[in-house]
Amino acid sequence: MTTDFASTALLTDQYELTMIDAALNAGTADRDCVFELFARKLPAGRRYGVVAGVGRALEALQRFRFRDSELEFLRERGIVRDETLSWLADYRFTGNIRGYREGELFFPNSPLLEVHAGFAEGVILETLLLSIYNYDSAVASAASRMVSVAQGRPLAEMGSRRTGEHSAVAASRAAYIAGFDATSNLEAGRTWGVPTMGTAAHSFTLLHDTERDAFVAQLETLGVGTTLLVDTYDVGRAIELAIEVAGPGLGGVRLDSGDLPTLVAEVRAHLDALGATSTKITVTNDLDEFAIAGLSSAPVDSYGVGTSVVTGSGAVASGMVYKLVARRDEASGEWVSVAKASTGKVSIGGVKHPVRRRDERGVATAELVGIGDASVGDGDDRELAVDLVTDGVVDERWLGAAGVAAAREHCAAVIAELPLTALRLRAGDPALSTVFVDGD
Amino acid sequence: MTTDFASTALLTDQYELTMIDAALNAGTADRDCVFELFARKLPAGRRYGVVAGVGRALEALQRFRFRDSELEFLRERGIVRDETLSWLADYRFTGNIRGYREGELFFPNSPLLEVHAGFAEGVILETLLLSIYNYDSAVASAASRMVSVAQGRPLAEMGSRRTGEHSAVAASRAAYIAGFDATSNLEAGRTWGVPTMGTAAHSFTLLHDTERDAFVAQLETLGVGTTLLVDTYDVGRAIELAIEVAGPGLGGVRLDSGDLPTLVAEVRAHLDALGATSTKITVTNDLDEFAIAGLSSAPVDSYGVGTSVVTGSGAVASGMVYKLVARRDEASGEWVSVAKASTGKVSIGGVKHPVRRRDERGVATAELVGIGDASVGDGDDRELAVDLVTDGVVDERWLGAAGVAAAREHCAAVIAELPLTALRLRAGDPALSTVFVDGD
Repeated sequence: MTTDFASTALLTDQYELTMIDAALNAGTADRDCVFELFARKLPAGRRYGVVAGVGRALEALQRFRFRDSELEFLRERGIVRDETLSWLADYRFTGNIRGYREGELFFPNSPLLEVHAGFAEGVILETLLLSIYNYDSAVASAASRMVSVAQGRPLAEMGSRRTGEHSAVAASRAAYIAGFDATSNLEAGRTWGVPTMGTAAHSFTLLHDTERDAFVAQLETLGVGTTLLVDTYDVGRAIELAIEVAGPGLGGVRLDSGDLPTLVAEVRAHLDALGATSTKITVTNDLDEFAIAGLSSAPVDSYGVGTSVVTGSGAVASGMVYKLVARRDEASGEWVSVAKASTGKVSIGGVKHPVRRRDERGVATAELVGIGDASVGDGDDRELAVDLVTDGVVDERWLGAAGVAAAREHCAAVIAELPLTALRLRAGDPALSTVFVDGD
Repeated sequence: MTTDFASTALLTDQYELTMIDAALNAGTADRDCVFELFARKLPAGRRYGVVAGVGRALEALQRFRFRDSELEFLRERGIVRDETLSWLADYRFTGNIRGYREGELFFPNSPLLEVHAGFAEGVILETLLLSIYNYDSAVASAASRMVSVAQGRPLAEMGSRRTGEHSAVAASRAAYIAGFDATSNLEAGRTWGVPTMGTAAHSFTLLHDTERDAFVAQLETLGVGTTLLVDTYDVGRAIELAIEVAGPGLGGVRLDSGDLPTLVAEVRAHLDALGATSTKITVTNDLDEFAIAGLSSAPVDSYGVGTSVVTGSGAVASGMVYKLVARRDEASGEWVSVAKASTGKVSIGGVKHPVRRRDERGVATAELVGIGDASVGDGDDRELAVDLVTDGVVDERWLGAAGVAAAREHCAAVIAELPLTALRLRAGDPALSTVFVDGD
C-alpha cells in the first residue's frame, strides 16, 4: 500500500481516543478483550436482515492510520497526551476478527463480528465499524425485500441523489449484494464492479425544441436499444413518437410518474399495437417494496428504485452496537464475560459460536449461538463465522469487486435456505429465533 | 490545487454522461440553460427547512475532474463515445451559480440554487449537488428543531455510528450549522472546525476490575472536569462513587439509559446532597426533538443526540430535485421557461428572484419569488440568493471552516426572523407561504 491514501482514522468518535489515553495511563490498555458487533433487534416487522459492509470495513481497517496530519490535529486540540499520540502513530491492528460473511442473513443478537484484541486496539475501531455496518446493512436488508417481491424482474438502484455522496456508492454496492442487478452510480461501477446503467432524464427532452428532436438525438448516439423516457409531456403521444422514430425494435421506455399499475398496462397495449412487442417497460416512480409488490401483475419488465433503497426503506440506522463482551482476567488468565446492566439495553457477555440450524431438507430453523465453550452445531447446521482478519492481516478474499461478487452469490444462497414465509412483506417476528446455549 | 485529490466526478449517475454524449453529438450540449435545485414540499408536518451542504458542494465542484483513472473506467465500460471522453477530460465548470446561503431557511419551492451554464456543463452536476444538499439539509433541518426545543442548553451531535462514515462528517457539520454546539466526530473537527467532545463509553468501565478503578483511571488522565458515565451498573452507587473519588468538583455525569425525566431529577438531588451542586448532568439516550422537549423541565445541563439527528429525524432524504427550468432560444436569444408536465410532479419554469418578505418589525411573512423579469422586494425584504460561483470561480467565503462559522451565524439570525409559532414542534403547514410573482 502506498502512503498516498485517505486515512480513515479520524472517522471516529473522540471518546475512543480519550478512553485509550486513560487506559494507557492506567496500564489497562493492553488487556485482552473481545468486542462484539450485533443488533439487539430488527426494524419493526422485519423478518431478517442482510449483513453488508464487511469488505468495506476491512478496507477501511487497512487505511486506519494516524499520520502526521491526523496527529497534528489531535495535538493542536489537546485531545490526548503526547504518549498517546506516539501510540496512535504506531497503531496497526494486530488482533483477530471473525464474523458473518458479507451477504449472510442476521437476526436479533446474531454475533456479526467478534474483534479479539487488546482493549485499545479493539475499542478504537468501534465508530468506523458501526458506521459502515449500520448503513450498508440497512440498505442491503431493504434491498433484499425488494428483490424477493420483484420475482426475478431486474432491479436497478438509482438513489444516489437521496443519500450522502459517499454513502451513495456504499448503497449501490449493498443493494447489488442483496440481489439488485445494476446501479446508476458510476463510482460503484469503478470501485466495486457493479454493473451500471442509465440513459436520459426529463431535462434532455426539455433541452430540445421538440420531444422528437430529443428522441432522435438520443437514438442517434445511444442506439435503438436505448430506453426513452416517455412521460415528459403526454405519454400516449410520446409512445407513438418513440416507435415512429426508433421503429418497433426500440429497447425500452421508462415511466417516472403517474398511476403505474394502470399506466403500465395501457403502455404495454399501446406498444404491442404499434408492433413493439419486445420493447421493455421500466418504471422508476418512488418505488419501494410495497409498490413493487403492487405491480406484480402489471406488465413491468424492470424496476428502478431510488429513495427507499438508499434509506433502508424506513430503517436507515440498523441499530447495531459494538460492545465489550469478554476480557481475560489478569490474574487467572481466564476469560470473564462482561456486560453492562443498564435498563432496557441487555447485552449477552462472552465469546460466541454461531451456527444456522437447518433441518434435513436444508431449511433454516434457528440461529444457534454457543457461548464460551458450549458445543453447538451438527451435520445439517452451517457455520456462520469466518476468519476476516488473522493476526492483523486481512483476508483478501473479502475485498474489492471479487469480495462483492462472492457476497452477492452467498446472499442468494442463504436466502434460499429461509422458510418461504420469511420472504413475505407482511410485518412479523424474526423468521428465526436466536437461541443461546451457555457453556457453563 | 494539487493533482493529488479525490475526484468527485464519478459520484454521478450514468445518465448525466449519456445525455451529454447524445447532446454533444446532436449539437445541443452548449445551449444556454438554467437548472434549479429545490424541494417541492417539506417533510410532513415540518414548518421550515434549513439549507446545508453549500460549502461542501462548492468544494466538491472544485474536485469535479475527469482524470485518467476516471476516463479509463468510462472507456473500458464503453459508457460514452471517445469524443465525449475528450470533452470530459477538459471539463471545468465555467458558468454561474447563485443560491441561498448556507444556514438559510427554505420552504416548498424555494429556489435554493440556480445553475446557469451550457446544458452539458450544468446537467453533469445534478447527482452530486443533490446528494450533498439532500443529506446535509435533512440533518440541519432536524437539528434546528432540536436546537429550538433545547432552549439554550448545549447540544452535542454523536451519531457518527448511525450513518455512513463520510455522511457522519457531513452530519456533524450540518448539525453545527443549525446550532448544535459540538460533535463527537474527529474528522468534522479537523475538516470543518467543529468543536469536538467525548470522554468514555461503557466498555471503559467494563474493562476495569471495578467501577472505582475505571473512574480513578479516567480522572487521573482526563482530570476532574471530565464527565463520568454512571449507568454501567447501579446509578445511585455510581454517583456516590464518582463524587467520592472525584470530589464535589466533578465536571459532569452522563446518563445513557433509563426513564430520563425521573432519573435526572433523582441524580440532581443525589449530586446536590453530596455537595456536587455544580456537577453537570448530560443525557444521551436515544434523544430526538420530542424527547428533548419532554426533558425541558428536568434539571438536564446538556444533551447528546445520535441517531435522530444524523437520520433527519424521520426525513433523511429531503426530496430536493434539480430541474432544467429555462433555456435560451437559439433563434431569438430569448429565455424560454420549460417544465415537464408529469402527473403530480409540477415544476415552475423560469429564472427566479427570491426574497424573504418581512414586516416592519423584521418578522418574516412570506417567501416571495419573482419569475423572469418580475420585480419583487422592498425595503423590509431580504434578498435570499448570493453569488456562489462566478464564471466558474468559487467564492472562497463559503468554503472551509470559515464558511461553516458564517453559515452557523446566518442560521441563528434568520431563525430569529421567524414568527414564534414556526418553532413549535407540533405538525403544521410551512411557516411561510411561497408566493410566485410572474413577470409576464
